[in-house]
Amino acid sequence: DLHPPESYFGRETLNRLSAKRTDRVWLEVKQSDPDTVYLLFSNLSPMVSGPKEDGSTKLCRFRYEAVKDLLQKLATVLVFLGVERRKKPSSSSDAAELLKRCGEKNCCFPKTPNRDLLRFSEDEAGVVAQARSVLAWHSRYSFCPTCGGSTALEEGGYKRSCLNPGCRSLKGVHNTCYPRVDPVVIMLVIHPDGNQCLLGRKKMFPVGMFSCLAGFIEPGETVEEAVRREVEEESGVKVGPVRYVSCQPWPMPSNLMIGCLAVAVSTAIKVDDDEIEEARWFPRQQVIDSFRGTRVTFTVPPRQTIAHQLIRHWIAVNSNL
Amino acid sequence: DLHPPESYFGRETLNRLSAKRTDRVWLEVKQSDPDTVYLLFSNLSPMVSGPKEDGSTKLCRFRYEAVKDLLQKLATVLVFLGVERRKKPSSSSDAAELLKRCGEKNCCFPKTPNRDLLRFSEDEAGVVAQARSVLAWHSRYSFCPTCGGSTALEEGGYKRSCLNPGCRSLKGVHNTCYPRVDPVVIMLVIHPDGNQCLLGRKKMFPVGMFSCLAGFIEPGETVEEAVRREVEEESGVKVGPVRYVSCQPWPMPSNLMIGCLAVAVSTAIKVDDDEIEEARWFPRQQVIDSFRGTRVTFTVPPRQTIAHQLIRHWIAVNSNL
Ligand SMILES: Nc1ncnc2c1ncn2[C@@H]1O[C@H](COP(=O)(O)O)[C@@H](O)[C@H]1O
Ligand SMILES: Nc1ncnc2c1ncn2[C@@H]1O[C@H](COP(=O)(O)O)[C@@H](O)[C@H]1O
Ligand SMILES: [Mg+2]
Ligand SMILES: [Mg+2]
Ligand SMILES: [Mg+2]
Ligand SMILES: [Mg+2]
Ligand SMILES: [Mg+2]
Ligand SMILES: [Mg+2]
Ligand SMILES: [Zn+2]
Ligand SMILES: [Zn+2]
Repeated sequence: DLHPPESYFGRETLNRLSAKRTDRVWLEVKQSDPDTVYLLFSNLSPMVSGPKEDGSTKLCRFRYEAVKDLLQKLATVLVFLGVERRKKPSSSSDAAELLKRCGEKNCCFPKTPNRDLLRFSEDEAGVVAQARSVLAWHSRYSFCPTCGGSTALEEGGYKRSCLNPGCRSLKGVHNTCYPRVDPVVIMLVIHPDGNQCLLGRKKMFPVGMFSCLAGFIEPGETVEEAVRREVEEESGVKVGPVRYVSCQPWPMPSNLMIGCLAVAVSTAIKVDDDEIEEARWFPRQQVIDSFRGTRVTFTVPPRQTIAHQLIRHWIAVNSNL
Repeated sequence: DLHPPESYFGRETLNRLSAKRTDRVWLEVKQSDPDTVYLLFSNLSPMVSGPKEDGSTKLCRFRYEAVKDLLQKLATVLVFLGVERRKKPSSSSDAAELLKRCGEKNCCFPKTPNRDLLRFSEDEAGVVAQARSVLAWHSRYSFCPTCGGSTALEEGGYKRSCLNPGCRSLKGVHNTCYPRVDPVVIMLVIHPDGNQCLLGRKKMFPVGMFSCLAGFIEPGETVEEAVRREVEEESGVKVGPVRYVSCQPWPMPSNLMIGCLAVAVSTAIKVDDDEIEEARWFPRQQVIDSFRGTRVTFTVPPRQTIAHQLIRHWIAVNSNL
C-alpha cells in the first residue's frame, strides 16, 4: 500500500496544549513573555515577506513589544496556537533581525488566498491553516446562533460564549460555542476498466485545468455515502467501492478535505451544469503525460492540493511516476 | 483486509434529490401528495411505536391529511428528506392501518436519545440520523451568527438565510447558511506489542463499561493528527501510525465519527481527569471474553456504536470471533 505524502496545510509543528486554554493566568504570562511569537492577520490574510524569486513567502513573526498596542484594541482577536515542538535555535539578534525586516519594504497581507496561501513551507502552511480557520470562524460567528445575542471570546480563542444569561446555549455543551470544521469528500473516480479516471472542471477554474469531484458531507451521512451521492449528483456516474486515502485541512475557510478513491459501476456522464462545466474520463497515459509535462492536453491542480495528491497516488500505484 | 459492517445510522435508504431542494413548485406538489410520508419529531425525538418485546421500536408514518394542520403552524420545521430508492409495496390499507395505529396507545416521543435512538432497524436508523441532525441544527441556529438577525428556512430545510438585507452572509457562499456537521475522531489504540488495546471510561458511562477514546477534530488538523493529539491529551499515550477503518453519522446532535486504528509508540498512561475517569490496556483475550459473554470483567459499548465495531474489528483480524 503506497501512501501519499503528508498534506500541505496538514503538518502540526505546534503542540496545541489545549489544556492550557482554560488557564487564564498561564495565557496571560505567555502573552507578555519576550519569547512568545506573534503572527498578524488582516482580513484572514497573514502578513508575509516575499514572494522570493522562487515564488515562496515566509510568515512575518513579531515579539510582544511590537504588538502590544494592537493587543489593546477591542477589534483585535487573539488566538493561542500552541508551543513549538522543537525549540528553534533563535538568538535574540535573530529576533531583532526579523522585527527590522518586517517593518521594512516587501511585507504585505496578500489578497488572493486561493493562490497566495500555497506559497509557504510545509511547516508554516500548517500554522496558517490552524490560525486562518479559527479567525474565519470568529469573523463569521460573533453572534450567538441560538438567541442572536453577542458573544465573548474565551479559552485562548477556541470558544465563544453567549453574553445573554438566559440563553439555552449556556446550559450543557453545544457546538454553537466551538469553531466549525466542515467535512468535505474529494474523490478520484476510477473507470470500471481501471485505466481511466473521472475529472471535472468548474467555470472558475484556470483554463485547461481539471480536478477531482468534491462536495460537502451532509448531516446523517457517512464518508462513503457522501462520495456516492456527490459523484452521482455532479457527473451522473454511479460509484461502488470507496476507499479512504488521506485528508487535508483546507482553511478556506475551514474545511476538512477527506480524500478517497472510488470505483465507478457506470460510465455515462451527465454533468450538473450548475456546478460543473465539463467532466470527462481521462486515460491513465494522458494523466501521466500531464504530470510529466510532455504532450500536455490538460493541467492538474497544484501539488499543494489533495486533488493533485490523489491523482498522483492513483498513477503511482501502477506506473513509475 | 476485513471490513466492519455498515454502520448503524449510516444506511441511506432515501435518495436525497438535493437538486429538487431549490425547486419550490416540485416541493409544494410533493407536500400535499397523498403518497408522501411524514415523520414527526418533538424536541428532536421521533414519534415511534413500541418498544416491542425485543426492545425494538418503529417510526410512526403519517400522510398529508394527518399532518396538514401541523404544517400551518409557524413553529413547525419541515425538512425534505428524500425519495425512497426502492418503492415499498404499500397498499392504501397499509397506510390506513399505520395511521390508525399511530393515533392509538403505545406511541410516544422517547426521552433518552442516547438509548432510545438505538432501537430502530438499520433502514430507519439512517433516516432518523439525517432528520434529527438537520432538526437539531434548526433548533440551535435560528439566528444569523454573522449579524445576530433572524433567518428564514429555505431549500427544503437545508439552508437558512439571513433576513437582514445588509448582512455580509448574503454576499457569496458561507457555511453560516448550511447545516453543521462536526467531524470527530474515534480510535482504538493498539499497544506496541499488538496484543492489548487502550480503552477508557468517562464518569457518565454505565458501570463497568469501557470504550474507545474520541475527540473533536480541530480547525487546521488532519484526521491522523487529531487522533494523535486526542489520545495524548486524554491518556498520555503517544501514537504513531493511524489507519482509517470506517465512519458513522452520530446524530447527537450532528457528529461524523471517523473510526481509526492507531498504533501506540509509548505505553505509560496518564489520564486527563477532566474528561476521563480511567484508562487501561486490555489484553486481547479479556476483550474476546467480554464479547463472548464469558468471564466478563468489563463491558463494551452496544453493537450500534462504531466503538463496538472498531473493537470487534481488531479482535476479528486475528481471532475467530
Ligand atoms: N458548509 C457549507 N459551506 C458552503 N457551502 C455549502 C455548505 N454546505 C452545503 N453547501 C452548498 O454546497 C454547494 C457546493 O456544492 P458541493 O461542494 O458539491 O457540496 C455550495 O454552493 C452551497 O450551496
Ligand atoms: N463541536 C463541538 N461540540 C461540542 N463540544 C466541543 C466541540 N468542539 C470542542 N468541544 C469541546 O470538547 C469537549 C469534548 O472533548 P473531546 O470530545 O475529547 O474533543 C467538550 O466538552 C467541549 O468543551
Ligand atoms: Mg462539488
Ligand atoms: Mg453538496
Ligand atoms: Mg456537489
Ligand atoms: Mg474525548
Ligand atoms: Mg478535544
Ligand atoms: Mg479530548
Ligand atoms: Zn445566546
Ligand atoms: Zn445576518
